[in-house]
This record gives sequence, structure tokens and C-alpha cells, in this order.
Amino acid sequence: MDGFWYKEWTQGRRFVIKITPGEQIRERLQQFAAAARVKNAVIVSAVGSVKNVAFRGIKAGAKLPITEPRMHQHQAAGPLELLGLDGNLITDEKGDIDCHLHILVGKSSGEVVGGHLFDAQVFATCEILLTEMLVEGVERHPSKSGGVATIFIDEEA
Amino acid sequence: MDGFWYKEWTQGRRFVIKITPGEQIRERLQQFAAAARVKNAVIVSAVGSVKNVAFRGIKAGAKLPITEPRMHQHQAAGPLELLGLDGNLITDEKGDIDCHLHILVGKSSGEVVGGHLFDAQVFATCEILLTEMLVEGVERHPSKSGGVATIFIDEEA
Amino acid sequence: MDGFWYKEWTQGRRFVIKITPGEQIRERLQQFAAAARVKNAVIVSAVGSVKNVAFRGIKAGAKLPITEPRMHQHQAAGPLELLGLDGNLITDEKGDIDCHLHILVGKSSGEVVGGHLFDAQVFATCEILLTEMLVEGVERHPSKSGGVATIFIDEEA
Repeated sequence: MDGFWYKEWTQGRRFVIKITPGEQIRERLQQFAAAARVKNAVIVSAVGSVKNVAFRGIKAGAKLPITEPRMHQHQAAGPLELLGLDGNLITDEKGDIDCHLHILVGKSSGEVVGGHLFDAQVFATCEILLTEMLVEGVERHPSKSGGVATIFIDEEA
Repeated sequence: MDGFWYKEWTQGRRFVIKITPGEQIRERLQQFAAAARVKNAVIVSAVGSVKNVAFRGIKAGAKLPITEPRMHQHQAAGPLELLGLDGNLITDEKGDIDCHLHILVGKSSGEVVGGHLFDAQVFATCEILLTEMLVEGVERHPSKSGGVATIFIDEEA
Repeated sequence: MDGFWYKEWTQGRRFVIKITPGEQIRERLQQFAAAARVKNAVIVSAVGSVKNVAFRGIKAGAKLPITEPRMHQHQAAGPLELLGLDGNLITDEKGDIDCHLHILVGKSSGEVVGGHLFDAQVFATCEILLTEMLVEGVERHPSKSGGVATIFIDEEA
């Protein structure tokens, strides 16, 4: 294909996940996936509140690949409203689940900040609705040209 | 479970909902749920534009539980682009549908604000795609320690 | 119905789509829909990074319909983290797929901007999870009163 790739997948199980105050969202999502034997999944919805949010943004004018000097890392103590958590859990080439998550959080001023999520702690609550993806031939690998781990679809080879 | 809870649910009906200009989104979603006899649901996608958006953020440094002195309430007259509406509709312990919605809206400057949604009026249009959740043993209850109503999963007891 | 309309739809196929660096997201989504013969769909999740993002916001105090003098158009060179891409693909009255997309992007400062998307180029990667909607009697038409193209549900007539 020219410029894009796509693959059909089948919907597996559906889960509601609630993460306890004080816990790390990304770490607990990985543990959930291991406990429920989920290999691939997509987050449909997430609401709640968070604190100690570690995320990054890409510097304006940066070139590919994305390297550490080309990003800014942030730490927001909060607490903050959790306004968006988009992302997917895809098995990598070693068979481990890899979460690719982007976060949007709201300050008390109403201002919204966010970026590529390293991790965040739950403040009052965190409710996640997630769909398991049943699919073969889709894996997460590091992309040398992009500098990030990304989905690879087998037909791309 | 340690640090998180999860439960499987089954996908019910799928709906496209269009809310008329001037109407309150949260109120109309509740009426939709009553009309379609939906007990639990998750918002998959929402686009449109809004005005008179009432929402809140949590003050930096606030402790749990979230109480009124620990939040800032906002009223944005707009109109504003509706850029995100994440949330779920869960039946509470009285059998009423309770919407937990977080909103993201864009100003003409491009700046994005948002928070926990009280309610908002539709400006030009509002298109919502929603999935019914079929599940037993999941309810919304007030959390004394958190100060907010949140999902409780029966195995937590 | 009074104040809102709704219609049930059936879930069709599920797709993972990966758009190549340098490509236009909106244009490639339209091409994907044509290639996979998808008539109606909703974006469930999108993560990645973008550059040259063209979007618009509505001016504060604007009246309906939304016309060009009542909006501000923006061009963000980036690169920026792609933090949200909400929207749907609905067939219009001419049988063409029409994408209604709203975007949220994060700057290196952590600040988030966004609005109604004209188009954006992929920077490092763009991973989209999408659900096909099987439904009759739902079309996108221009709304004279609103100034935008929106979903029309047949029972509205």
C-alpha cells in the first residue's frame, strides 16, 4: 500500500478496569494485561483524576528520529483531572505487552496539558474501559527512522 | 486484587446520538438512556461544538477527598469546538443512570481547556457514538475517601 | 423526539491503520475507507505525532451559522504529540465518505491546542483503531442553520 497500512482485527473481551488511588496507571495496566492474558488491546475511555504525571513533548522544529535531546520531559504534581488517555497495548517482539499511551490532564485553572505518558498515579479514581484485540501479524517494534516503538503490520515487510 | 480491579462486560447495542442546538448534553444523554432503556454505557466518540460549558478542576496540592473548597468551577460562554467527551453512564445504587463525563473544548485561539463536566449546551451540532455495556455487579457509588462517585465492582467487597 | 435523536447501528469490521510519516491523515483515512469499502466508521483511538496541523476554532461570541468570518484558522508547524483524534466517517448525500475530525495536539511546553481538523501530516507514526458502522438512514448533509455538515438521521424528517 502507498502511504498507509491497515489490517482487520476481531473484537475479543471487553473489560472495565478500576485502578486504586496512589497506584501507577501504566504499571497497573501492564499487570492487568498479564493477569487477564490480554495480548493486544485498545483503550476506549478513561476518566478519573491523577497526580505526579510524567510525560514528554517533542521540541518544535525537531527532526526524525525522536531522540532525548529533541524532547522536553515534564512532571506535573497535580492533582489534575484525567481528561483523556488514548492508546493501545500491543505485544512486542519479545512477547511483552507494550503500552503506548498519550495523556490529557486539566489544571484547576481549566488549562489542559499533556503528552506522551511515562506514568501517572491515580488520585481519587481511575475508570478505564478497554477492548481486547484479536489479531495476528501485528507487533510493536522500535522504528529506527522514527525513534519510537510503533505498530508493524506483517504485510509491510 | 492488589491495586486494581477488573471485570469483563459484554457489548450491547450501539447508538448514534445527535443532540439539537441549544440543548444540554448531560441532561439529554440521561434522557436518551431512559428512552432506550440503557443501564450502562460508554462514550466512544463525540464531536461538535458547545457553549455555556460548566466544568471544574482540582486545585494543585489538594488532598483527598475532593471537596468543593478543593476545586475551581469554571463557566466558558464560548462557543467552543467540542474536542473530547470521555466518560461512562453507570447505574447508581438507587437505579438511576449517573453520567461521569470529562470535557475538552477548543477556543478560537487554539487553546484547549477542560475538566469534569457539570453540563454544556450544544452550539451547532453534537454527534455522539456510544456502546451499551451489559454487565452485572458494577455500580456507581459515592466514595467517601475520594469525595467523588465512582464505579464499584462487586468482587471488591 | 424532543431535543435529541438516536439510532441503533451494528458493528462491522474493526481495523488497525498505520499512516506513514509525511502523509496527510485526513486524506489517507479517506483512501483507506475507499480501499476497504467502509461507508461509515468511528475512530476509537489514535496515537502518534504530527506536523503542519491546520485546524480552526470558533470565535467567542459567534452566532450560528458558523461562517468563515466567525472562525480563526491555525497552522501549527510542530512537530507535536497527537493526543486526541475524535471523529467519524459518514457517507454524504453524494455517496462520498466525509470525515468529521477534531484534533488535540501537545507542544513541547506541555500546552495543548486543537480544534476542527482541516488536515495534518504524520511525523514519526500514527496508529488509528477504527470500527466500521453498519447502519441505514444515517447521512452527512450540510446544515444551513448550523453552517456545518452534520449527521442526519432519517427519523428526523
